[in-house]
Amino acid sequence: MTTGEFKITIHMVSSLDGMIARKDNNVSWFDTSHPYDKGVAGQDPEEFLKTIDCYVMGSRTYEHALELSKSYGWAYGDKPTIVLTGRDLPNDKPNIEFYAGTLHQLVNERLKPRYKNVWVVGGAKLTKDFLRLKLADEIRVSILPIILGEGLPFFDHIGQEQVLRLQDTMAYKNGMVELCYEIVK
Amino acid sequence: MTTGEFKITIHMVSSLDGMIARKDNNVSWFDTSHPYDKGVAGQDPEEFLKTIDCYVMGSRTYEHALELSKSYGWAYGDKPTIVLTGRDLPNDKPNIEFYAGTLHQLVNERLKPRYKNVWVVGGAKLTKDFLRLKLADEIRVSILPIILGEGLPFFDHIGQEQVLRLQDTMAYKNGMVELCYEIVK
Repeated sequence: MTTGEFKITIHMVSSLDGMIARKDNNVSWFDTSHPYDKGVAGQDPEEFLKTIDCYVMGSRTYEHALELSKSYGWAYGDKPTIVLTGRDLPNDKPNIEFYAGTLHQLVNERLKPRYKNVWVVGGAKLTKDFLRLKLADEIRVSILPIILGEGLPFFDHIGQEQVLRLQDTMAYKNGMVELCYEIVK
Repeated sequence: MTTGEFKITIHMVSSLDGMIARKDNNVSWFDTSHPYDKGVAGQDPEEFLKTIDCYVMGSRTYEHALELSKSYGWAYGDKPTIVLTGRDLPNDKPNIEFYAGTLHQLVNERLKPRYKNVWVVGGAKLTKDFLRLKLADEIRVSILPIILGEGLPFFDHIGQEQVLRLQDTMAYKNGMVELCYEIVK
């Protein structure tokens, strides 16, 4: 993928055991306590996040993000955010849109005409659907140096086998490792 | 940890979604098909495996390895291998020993007097016990470039939170990424 092409990235930040949230939703595990001297300094998150045009998430992930936002603020800023749902969910932000169509419709009618760099941020069901329909181009996993042991798993037996091609890895000074894979179609 | 000290390493080879075996036990996913040009050439496995003095595994992992050995041979060679079990399991190898004591007894009475570099190779229950009792020193995860989607998970909600310190990462030409963490006690 070169810059400028339309691209859908599945993204998660997880513990080593694949959890994306503690049972009590406390996010203190994002602050790591043991530096990795060989790591690169983190890229400017502001600059990096600017490259994302739109977030897509499932309805449970949205409800989880809403719950978290009460304590930590809304994590996705003012970016366009599309929630896949047929349900009537609370929404107090103009940049959040509910969508009840198919994923093919979403991609072809809503995403491709407007955006280049789309991030799917979970959950497991939506990830599975994107993989099954071969609609995602890459998967980017940021692994924090902790085992949570319980909580909300990202993949959770998604029942869909998918070959990947490693594109890049990066270890950061805070001990986070980022793995980026092309989804082989 | 410096060479020569007694060290217990928890090790797994898994898919990106944390599976260590396919449902049908087929291991063709170990042969990756998309090279990673930036990766280092693999270290000589023979040389590397020589540094391991002893394997420790749970009884289900042993049964799984036995099942696999019918098609692919016994994966742990002639190394001393201790299976934690109180059950009467089949065993046709002189280097495999069953042990029914506690993990503290195992470590202090059997492992420390004889070995330096011990590898715990699963499963989830044994890993949890080693973490809970603070008996393991490091965890080494080798992630292959595939999502299996179902199968046998390594961690499987082990219910034990554990802070880690990233020690090293390495990406190989076959697309496998190895992450090595100190288990912070």
